[in-house]
Formats: sequence, structure tokens, C-alpha cells
Amino acid sequence: MTTVYKKIERICKKSKLASYELSNISNFERNKALILISESIIKNTKKILDANKKDINKAKKNNLPLNLIDRLFLNEDRVNSLSADIKNIAKLEDPLGKKLSENFRPNGLKISKVSVPLGVIAVVFESRPNVASDVASLCLKSGNSVILKGGKEAKNSTDIIIKVFQKELLKTNILPTSVTSIKDYSRDSVNQLFKMDKYIDVLIPRGGKGLIDHVRKNSNIPVFSHLDGICHTYIDKYASRKMAIDIAFNAKMRRTSICGATETILCHSQVADIILPSLVNNLIEAGCRIKGSTDVLKYNKKVVRAKESDWRTEYLDSIVSIKIVKDINSAIKHINHYSSKHTDAIITNNKKMAESFLKNIESAIVMHNTSTQFADGAEFGLGSEVGISTGKLHARGPVSLEGLTTYKYLVKGTGQIRN
Amino acid sequence: MTTVYKKIERICKKSKLASYELSNISNFERNKALILISESIIKNTKKILDANKKDINKAKKNNLPLNLIDRLFLNEDRVNSLSADIKNIAKLEDPLGKKLSENFRPNGLKISKVSVPLGVIAVVFESRPNVASDVASLCLKSGNSVILKGGKEAKNSTDIIIKVFQKELLKTNILPTSVTSIKDYSRDSVNQLFKMDKYIDVLIPRGGKGLIDHVRKNSNIPVFSHLDGICHTYIDKYASRKMAIDIAFNAKMRRTSICGATETILCHSQVADIILPSLVNNLIEAGCRIKGSTDVLKYNKKVVRAKESDWRTEYLDSIVSIKIVKDINSAIKHINHYSSKHTDAIITNNKKMAESFLKNIESAIVMHNTSTQFADGAEFGLGSEVGISTGKLHARGPVSLEGLTTYKYLVKGTGQIRN
Repeated sequence: MTTVYKKIERICKKSKLASYELSNISNFERNKALILISESIIKNTKKILDANKKDINKAKKNNLPLNLIDRLFLNEDRVNSLSADIKNIAKLEDPLGKKLSENFRPNGLKISKVSVPLGVIAVVFESRPNVASDVASLCLKSGNSVILKGGKEAKNSTDIIIKVFQKELLKTNILPTSVTSIKDYSRDSVNQLFKMDKYIDVLIPRGGKGLIDHVRKNSNIPVFSHLDGICHTYIDKYASRKMAIDIAFNAKMRRTSICGATETILCHSQVADIILPSLVNNLIEAGCRIKGSTDVLKYNKKVVRAKESDWRTEYLDSIVSIKIVKDINSAIKHINHYSSKHTDAIITNNKKMAESFLKNIESAIVMHNTSTQFADGAEFGLGSEVGISTGKLHARGPVSLEGLTTYKYLVKGTGQIRN
Repeated sequence: MTTVYKKIERICKKSKLASYELSNISNFERNKALILISESIIKNTKKILDANKKDINKAKKNNLPLNLIDRLFLNEDRVNSLSADIKNIAKLEDPLGKKLSENFRPNGLKISKVSVPLGVIAVVFESRPNVASDVASLCLKSGNSVILKGGKEAKNSTDIIIKVFQKELLKTNILPTSVTSIKDYSRDSVNQLFKMDKYIDVLIPRGGKGLIDHVRKNSNIPVFSHLDGICHTYIDKYASRKMAIDIAFNAKMRRTSICGATETILCHSQVADIILPSLVNNLIEAGCRIKGSTDVLKYNKKVVRAKESDWRTEYLDSIVSIKIVKDINSAIKHINHYSSKHTDAIITNNKKMAESFLKNIESAIVMHNTSTQFADGAEFGLGSEVGISTGKLHARGPVSLEGLTTYKYLVKGTGQIRN
């Protein structure tokens, strides 16, 4: 076994021990710790900004892309909202100790199903320093230890944030090892982390598809992840024209870089001539490139012909695919085939059509008469999220406190033996 | 792509299509189908027993182990109870369409979380023909298609059972392809099945550890599985003597081949001399071999010294490990270290000790003053089970109808766009 393996194992072992202690800490004490941390973040604003400046300077020196530098960047406002997010997590309902069911058996056994923490959660993320504080706070609130493995580019910023967490935890009954990080940025250290299924209960990769694919191939630890957000907006025959144009535009263009952004607009053939001319025009005027099925080309000469691969592409950019479909069933078929099962919406004023769409689309989130851009934990009223899961097991859609818990069965008897 | 691959893919595609249809079938119609099937099983008793006789004869000819032949064997009684189990599943509450939460957002969006089927479930099992009918019935009831891949030894028995399912489904609105099976018993065909993550939502391996390890290594499809049932019974300082002896004996000896059988008995040092002499004696008289820590050897000369590996062994036989521990904390530490996180029990009359054990043991099922042999879906009042999961994600403990569902978020708006 390598030195790196041993080093990572030592961290994981400590985290596991901390998780046992943490599962005995009351909601009151967990909240107290979060509030201390939230206040300490504010007090340490200058230190955090100084550390962040180091990361930013290095990123600029290394010519990292501008959008990455923006994600990395902190200012006083961003530090304030980071602190406020922690306080808001403290305010959420306790996800632990909930009696999910209770059942008295004829033989007198009392069987209850109670929510408990998952245990140890490891998060591998890239450049956004707020991920460290969001995820660590959600884990503390839900009684889980967390092992953070951030990107090298954000090293100084995440280090100081984690230090604030640990320093404040020293003032509470929670072990500071409940929030740890791996500071070895070598490829080897991540790969060793992926082998720690004995200690880590869930692995959350937050980052691009490459990272997630790598995790899936190289780790036995159960994973929460969303691979893609190939979201659809279907404009039905019974859609109101203005609503359809407004929603489809917003679903694509409000922010093109988020996973809830619509990547494909489907339009019922009987309303295409009424809706698409304006919609296509609005999109193009806003700088959006359009890849359309053959019958969409006529609406604007800037529309280019879509290839089959476009229907399965997450652009995360000002590009959209548009297809005219025969009817709602063709739309459902297209979506269940090409969607990444993240979020898909129908625009219609016909209740039957809406119900059929909501029922038959297989995705985690299915919407009626609204924008796929609402696919977000905070918009759902769940507080922060650790990510949006497109898998069907355990947590689906925005993963927040509840997704960070599991349950156990408690069976209480008075001496019953089984015949 | 091989012919086998194409053949398996064809089956999976049909199953996926069937699952879309099935998700639109009402509980009333699903129950009607189950009752038809249950009655048809009875009507076909002779055919089923004839087919089973073929399997049994072949198994005997091939000198298969007696316990395997027993698991394979059907008689009229067993066929009757197989039919009754299907009827009982029909009687269970509908697991679909449950509103798990509902939430009105300030912007008017209505967000509900509703239980839905998982989709397509593939089950790889070994020799017990009743697994085919149990699992297929649970899948139908929960709106899932199922692909069954049974052991070669049970070929004739499972084929006829599946034929009964399909024939009765023809009389209903449910596609007969909702219940399909793979009749190619080559290694290649299972391995191709493991690649069908595009169509199969969950894979359930029912069988030995070898099978489950093989699935984990060779498939990307999410898996429900329990690897081991290394269950513990801890006799606390405050245990009643008679209850402790009776429960520990039952937990080990009632049926040694089930996953809920206790494999290790831990005893508090201060009551060891009061409890262990009789318990050890009772176990040995019943034919149980005992592997004990050094301080257990004195109770009977037949006790052999336990090796470290014994604490991590699932005997599934009349063998038990016994260890004397200093106190409850040592017991908890031993269990969280060696347990397979299946089921562990404490025997005590001290409420504080019981609470501490229930809270700190990490397993799916934690018991107080009762036998680990009760770890079973039917005993929990859940109806049949597809297995007992020792993982922490999604379904834990006995997996029944609820474990075969997931949820989706339905978001209903009136034209909301996101700012």
C-alpha cells in the first residue's frame, strides 16, 4: 500500500469515527454550530478574500477560461451570501429522527422506520468555493461527516473556508474531523479516495461529465450524480401563443449554463406556423443559434439543419434544437428517448394533455406551463442542494437534506422468538 | 455486436415499452390481473408439478446438493402457497401515485412529489421457482416490467410459471411482455444483460455472494443486493437470563440458512458466568459448533478458539462465534466493525442501554429483546420481499413494494418564467 493510500485512509477513518459521534448530536447543537460558522465567515471576510485573490491571480496567470475565473471569484457580496446560506440551512427542519412509519405486529413487535444520517459523504468538486460551504453545512445539518476534495484552482479559498468550519466546531460538541478535506491534489489521491468504500457511504461528484464518468468507472462507492441536463420544452397544440413563446424563450435563454436550461424545443405541427416565426425570431435576436428539423428551416434563414446527434446534446450555451412533432405522443416518445431524465415541460391549456405528459414523461421533474429553469432546490423550497440527481434510486431531482439521510428499522420486542 | 447481444436487447426494448404502458394501468386492473394469475396457478398445478419433476430428476441425476434440490422442489402445498402469495400481494395498498409532499411556492408554482414505478427491473436468481412468481407479482403490483433470469436447474419450473403469467396478462390491458424471461442460460447472455443500462432501471441479484460480486463488477445498472447477513445478538449486563438464553438460541438455531440468523453472540463480561454456561450447553446439545474468544473456552471443552476471520464469517450453518465483551460500547464497536449492516439485536432490560444500541448500531435493522430471525418482509407486515438490502441508498432492510417505486416531481404553473 502506498503512502498516499495510507494518508487518505487515515482521513477516512477519522471521518467515520466523527460520523458516529455526529449521529448523537441534537438538532439544537447542530444548528448552534452552523450559526457560529455563519458568523465566523463574516468575521473572516478579509482573510477569505485575500486567499481568493491568490487563487484568482494564479488562475489569470495560467490563462484559465473566463467563466471558470468567474465561478472561482469571491467578493464581499458573495461571502455575505455564502454566510447567509449557512444560516438558512440551520433554519430548515431537522431531517433526522423522523418516524417514517410505525407498525405493531400481531406478536407484539413494534417496528418503526426512522430517518438517520447516511454516515460519511465525500464530495469531489471543481472550482466554486461556495460548494465547500454549502455541502459541508448540509452535511452537518443532516448529521453526516463530509470529506471535501476541491479543485486545485480553488485551493486557497476552500482551505480557509474549511478552516473556519473546523475552528468553530472546536467550540461545540461536534468533532472538527466531521468536516475534513484532502489537500493532496494529485490524481493518485483522488483515485485512492475512490477505493474507500469501507468508510465512505456516498460519493458526490460535482462537476463535468468527464469527472462523473471517471467516478463511475473507478469507484465502488454509491454515487449521486447527474450526468446531463438535456431538458425539453414541448409546445402543445393547445398552448397559449404568448405563454409558449415567453416560457420557451426563458427556458433556453435566462441562463444557458445551468443544467435546467432547455436544450430542445418541440412544437406541435398544427401550431408551428403560429408560434415558431416569433419564437425563432426572438431567439435569434437574442443571439441564440438554432438547429432545426427540416420543416423549421423556412422560418429563418439563419436556422441550420439539426443532425441526429443534436437531439442528444447538452449545449449549455446559446444554442437550441427545435423540432416539429406530429402530436403529443410523438413529443413524449422523442423526450423519453433523448431526454437525460432531468426536467421536461409541456405548455398547454388542455388538462388532459397536461396530465398525459406529466404521467408519461419518465424524468425526475416534469413541468406544466412553466420554465425548466425552475429546476433548482432553492426554487423548490428545499434550501440549498448538493446537486440534481437524474438517477431513479434514492434521491431524485434536487438533492437536499432529505436526500442526505437514509432510514433504519427499529424493532422493539419483549422477548419474542420466531416459531 | 453479437447475436446474443441483439437477442437480449430485443427483450429489454420490449420490456421498456411494456413498462411505459404499465405505468398507466390502474391499481384495480393490476389487482385483477394478479388474481387471475393466482387462480390460474392453481388450475395449472399438475402442469407445474410435472415440469418441476423434470427439474428435480435432472438435479438428482447431476448429483446436485440436497439443500439445492429442496429449494427447487415443489409439491401441491407449495404451489398453493405460491398462489396465495400472489393473491396477498394484490391485497396490499397501491404503492403508486402517492403524494409524498406538496408545496405551493410564493410565485404560484405547485410542486408535488409523487410515487411512480422504477420502470424495468431485471432479476437474476438461482434455483427457487417461487422467486419468479413472487418477484413478478411484486413488480406488476408496483407498475414495473420485469425481466427474469433464473437458474438453469429450475428451467422447466420457472418457464411454466412465467407462461401462466403471460397467458393471463393476455386477458387484461397489461402487455404480456411486462413479464419476460431470458431462456438462454449461457454465461454470455447474463453478461449481455448486465450491459443493458439503457433499458433496465434496477438489477436484483438473488443468490450467493459470488453472483452479487459478479454483478457489481460487471454491470453499470444500479443494484439492490445484500452481500452478507453477519448478524449479532448482544446480551447486555441488564438482560434477563431466561430471555437472553431463549432469544440467542432462537436467533442462531431456528433456521441457520437464512440471512437473518445470528452468526455472533456477544455477552457482557459481568453476566457471562450466569448466562453462557446454559446457553453454550443448549447450543452444543442442539448440534451447534461454537467458536469462542479465549474466555469462552472454559464453559465447555467442545468450544474451539475463534480466529479473527470468524468474526467476519457468515456461517449459514449450525456454527456460532461467541465473544465476551467489556461493556456495551465494546459491543457496539465490535458490531459496527464486523457486522454486514443487516440486523443486530440487544437483549437488555435497561432502557438507556437499549436506546444507545438502537441509535449507535449502523445496521439496516436494529432490534431490542427479540430474535434476529424476525428480519423478514412478511414478519414486518410488508408482504413478500424481493430481498433484504444492506446498502444505505434507496431501499434498506426488507425490500417490498415501496422499494420498487421511485418518485417524480410534478411542477404545475400558470405561465411562470424565472427571473
